[in-house]
Amino acid sequence: MRFTSEQSLDDGVVEREFTLGDIPGILWTPAPESVPASASASASAFASEPAPLILISPPPLGLRKVYPRLAGRARYYAARYGFAAATIELPGSGDRPRLAELDQARADLRRVMEAGEPVGDEIVAALVLPLVERAVPEWRTALDALLALPGLGGPVGYEGGVISIGVRLATVEPRIAAACLFAGSLVPRVISEEARQVGIPLQVLLQWDDEGNDRQASLNLYDAFGSKEKTLHANMGGHTGVPQYELDAGARFFARHLK
Amino acid sequence: MRFTSEQSLDDGVVEREFTLGDIPGILWTPAPESVPASASASASAFASEPAPLILISPPPLGLRKVYPRLAGRARYYAARYGFAAATIELPGSGDRPRLAELDQARADLRRVMEAGEPVGDEIVAALVLPLVERAVPEWRTALDALLALPGLGGPVGYEGGVISIGVRLATVEPRIAAACLFAGSLVPRVISEEARQVGIPLQVLLQWDDEGNDRQASLNLYDAFGSKEKTLHANMGGHTGVPQYELDAGARFFARHLK
Repeated sequence: MRFTSEQSLDDGVVEREFTLGDIPGILWTPAPESVPASASASASAFASEPAPLILISPPPLGLRKVYPRLAGRARYYAARYGFAAATIELPGSGDRPRLAELDQARADLRRVMEAGEPVGDEIVAALVLPLVERAVPEWRTALDALLALPGLGGPVGYEGGVISIGVRLATVEPRIAAACLFAGSLVPRVISEEARQVGIPLQVLLQWDDEGNDRQASLNLYDAFGSKEKTLHANMGGHTGVPQYELDAGARFFARHLK
Repeated sequence: MRFTSEQSLDDGVVEREFTLGDIPGILWTPAPESVPASASASASAFASEPAPLILISPPPLGLRKVYPRLAGRARYYAARYGFAAATIELPGSGDRPRLAELDQARADLRRVMEAGEPVGDEIVAALVLPLVERAVPEWRTALDALLALPGLGGPVGYEGGVISIGVRLATVEPRIAAACLFAGSLVPRVISEEARQVGIPLQVLLQWDDEGNDRQASLNLYDAFGSKEKTLHANMGGHTGVPQYELDAGARFFARHLK
């Protein structure tokens, strides 16, 4: 892990860009030596211990494009709750080399949808599994490197992006203690089955009128998770319409579990 | 409204029992002249203004029986958020005269369920509508009396108990600005239709494995509400298994809307 830039932002949060091999990433850490602005007991309890770390997995649109949204979340976590947060670019996204098989799978999906045909599990699997199989080991490597940094090493939460990556990571990576996932229906059958093995506390966001995801399939996936503590937060609106208040609800979910 | 007892509790909250005609009730108000213990901006903003009032509608089990649960919620709201909270006994419950038609409807429901027959809308309507038609005017009368008290007169939230009462009250009572409802499926068709007219912000709790309510019917009712802002919080477990953290989530929902 090599840091390539560092700046202190006006909320005191320190933002550092890094590369991990050829994968670009960003790390946000709370203001050094400061008690977080929030007076909540959960936040001040972290002051003398390693900060909890939230892995924020981006959607596959390129970090540059989603930077404002990701940085907004990360800085809220850091400034208000004393969490560190980090993200890395997904395989095939942003400035990373494109993946021919993903491009092919996207073209196949588009053709099927334009023809009005049902989207079969084969197409979903071709679209999602290559991403999962590359991204999950990369996240685990990033986690090794991040937890070795001074001031980190606390409990780890995960949130993001492509729900299938979250499911696989929650299944194979025991250092992840809680996850906030965005419900979706473009999930291969093999991942839906893995969901039954997930045991960590989950908070699942669902957009009730998501134009890109089937509501019943998303509810079925929520139902499938094996976790004893799982909460579904369903809100009105389309895919990008998650209400602002869910940011704090997510932070409070992590504050409950990352101790 | 006649107060029959008053005590200051150890958290500074003042609890007063009252009668409204022959209806018993309880009012909890924040410690006088104190800023609420919570340092949240939303709470301290209320310090110099009339306190928001949360109407806590009990389940039809009698106030005496559900007192610990209700008082726990009310005192949390008052001590942590500076809200006042009040409850009144439902018609036919607790020490109030039993209602023959409700007893008859309950016996009919039991017979149908024991016979394994489907519970038709006629039976649900007989069970629920007499309660709705009596309770709603009583809540409105209580609201008149409560809002006339010194220190009250702020915005009003509603939470509770029998969801059909909440739906009707949210439809006919414009002083209720936001409501936290407990999803259920024993809802007469006429009330499901009224749900489309509800326009205030809603937070709806649903217990995923509620032994007394059908999950899909509860989801359909959530879907039916006309409100632009509505959030569903679905949690694992049975009817009485609502997790403790939903108390604060409800308080924060009210804090967002009762300003």
